[in-house]
Amino acid sequence: MLWSGDETGLTTMLELYHAGLTQASVKVRTTLKEKGLAYKSHYLRLPEGEHLSPEFLAINPDGQVPALVHDGEIITETTVINEYLDDAFPDPPLKPTSPIERAQMRRFGQIVDEHLFHALATLGWAFGIGEILRERGVAEFEKSLARITIHSKRQKWLKAFNGFPQEDIDEARAKISYGVARTERALAEHPYLAGPTYSLADINVLSSVERIPRWAPDLMNAQVSPRTWEWFGRLMARPAVKATYSVSEEAPPRPTEARAARLAQGGGRGS
Amino acid sequence: MLWSGDETGLTTMLELYHAGLTQASVKVRTTLKEKGLAYKSHYLRLPEGEHLSPEFLAINPDGQVPALVHDGEIITETTVINEYLDDAFPDPPLKPTSPIERAQMRRFGQIVDEHLFHALATLGWAFGIGEILRERGVAEFEKSLARITIHSKRQKWLKAFNGFPQEDIDEARAKISYGVARTERALAEHPYLAGPTYSLADINVLSSVERIPRWAPDLMNAQVSPRTWEWFGRLMARPAVKATYSVSEEAPPRPTEARAARLAQGGGRGS
Repeated sequence: MLWSGDETGLTTMLELYHAGLTQASVKVRTTLKEKGLAYKSHYLRLPEGEHLSPEFLAINPDGQVPALVHDGEIITETTVINEYLDDAFPDPPLKPTSPIERAQMRRFGQIVDEHLFHALATLGWAFGIGEILRERGVAEFEKSLARITIHSKRQKWLKAFNGFPQEDIDEARAKISYGVARTERALAEHPYLAGPTYSLADINVLSSVERIPRWAPDLMNAQVSPRTWEWFGRLMARPAVKATYSVSEEAPPRPTEARAARLAQGGGRGS
Repeated sequence: MLWSGDETGLTTMLELYHAGLTQASVKVRTTLKEKGLAYKSHYLRLPEGEHLSPEFLAINPDGQVPALVHDGEIITETTVINEYLDDAFPDPPLKPTSPIERAQMRRFGQIVDEHLFHALATLGWAFGIGEILRERGVAEFEKSLARITIHSKRQKWLKAFNGFPQEDIDEARAKISYGVARTERALAEHPYLAGPTYSLADINVLSSVERIPRWAPDLMNAQVSPRTWEWFGRLMARPAVKATYSVSEEAPPRPTEARAARLAQGGGRGS
């Protein structure tokens, strides 16, 4: 699984293929910044299908970002990458020391992977990306679709283009409520999700929770989930988190935000 | 999160609430047996809804087995439990030592949680459990359904009772093919899924792969996936694996098998 496609000849230790401000990419970028690790950033423009190019599919055949390359080894999937980074670069530690707190941390990682991530992705695709895909037209859409190998991912693209059924929206909202109930319960016991210290549980959950105010503001706020709301504000004030979630050279505005700005300037269709 | 519901007054260090031969339960039982750990076994009969009893919901509000209780702490979710067991009882180790092999191990854990587990569960529910639920009648079914809090789990019950759409069967088969392609690729590089040594990757993946010969025999066999087939036979010969997957006092025949035996004796409807 060696990768030697770096034609610049640079021997960069860490390289990250990512999509800037997307849920999956902020998750890994936060960990890199919390650990103060330098890395070569490769920003891929998802709406242009750059994650489906032959070059990137050679790195990750699933066509998913982010992907980390460390000394020629390729690591994919955000939860796996984050725990890998903590194993390979243990200082400062982002895993609690006790087995039970580690289990709590991993349980929250799963809640993101199985509930929150998909829920927020569904709402983002339903309310944001769908419009963009339709503006680009059916030919471009079918070209992108033909290169997606994972069945569930194909379904998501098809629904974004054709419109999400209400049942999917309801399921997404139910998953968000489930996740927020779990964070409220954990934060009643300790200041961070896995225990007394900041860990990958907080980093991973934040990557999805940060989207809730935009797509489902009634499900997480100072009234319905006061502890999660306070934790959210506390995390967003961390320098590494602030740097990760801000627009920067390696993280341009998200397509939905760019589109909103374009529309505001009269450069596109819609209200 | 302390649990003190053991009315026997025994101070058992490890207790496992499980359902014997189900995919999720064999996964954790294998790890316990590989490590030679003694535990108090609580077998819950899923068709009787024992995992939805108030007593068990007090242990795991999600109503899912297995759940591990260790010195009063409750740990749920099989992948999390297995890594917890390896953290808490490191001898013999079931995690590789290198960060990259650990990442491989965790990636396979995810492939089970996100692809294989649900795929085999769908086929098992579609081809096996549905019949059993219908035999028990609509009143009993609705009583069980009312106690299930997770949306996706409710959907599964509803589909099992009403019949799975072909699209779900196709998706399940696509997920199995994806998983088997991954095991073939990994086993081309090393004798076990995460590297040269047996690990939680093998234990976790086996729990789903063991079902393929029953529900989708064309997708994993000596012809289409020779390396996975050889690995499968090698794993099933391990004493701890053999003990886990065999019918025993703590693991009675699965409902679908019990039903098949009952029907063969003329004790029920159907062919």
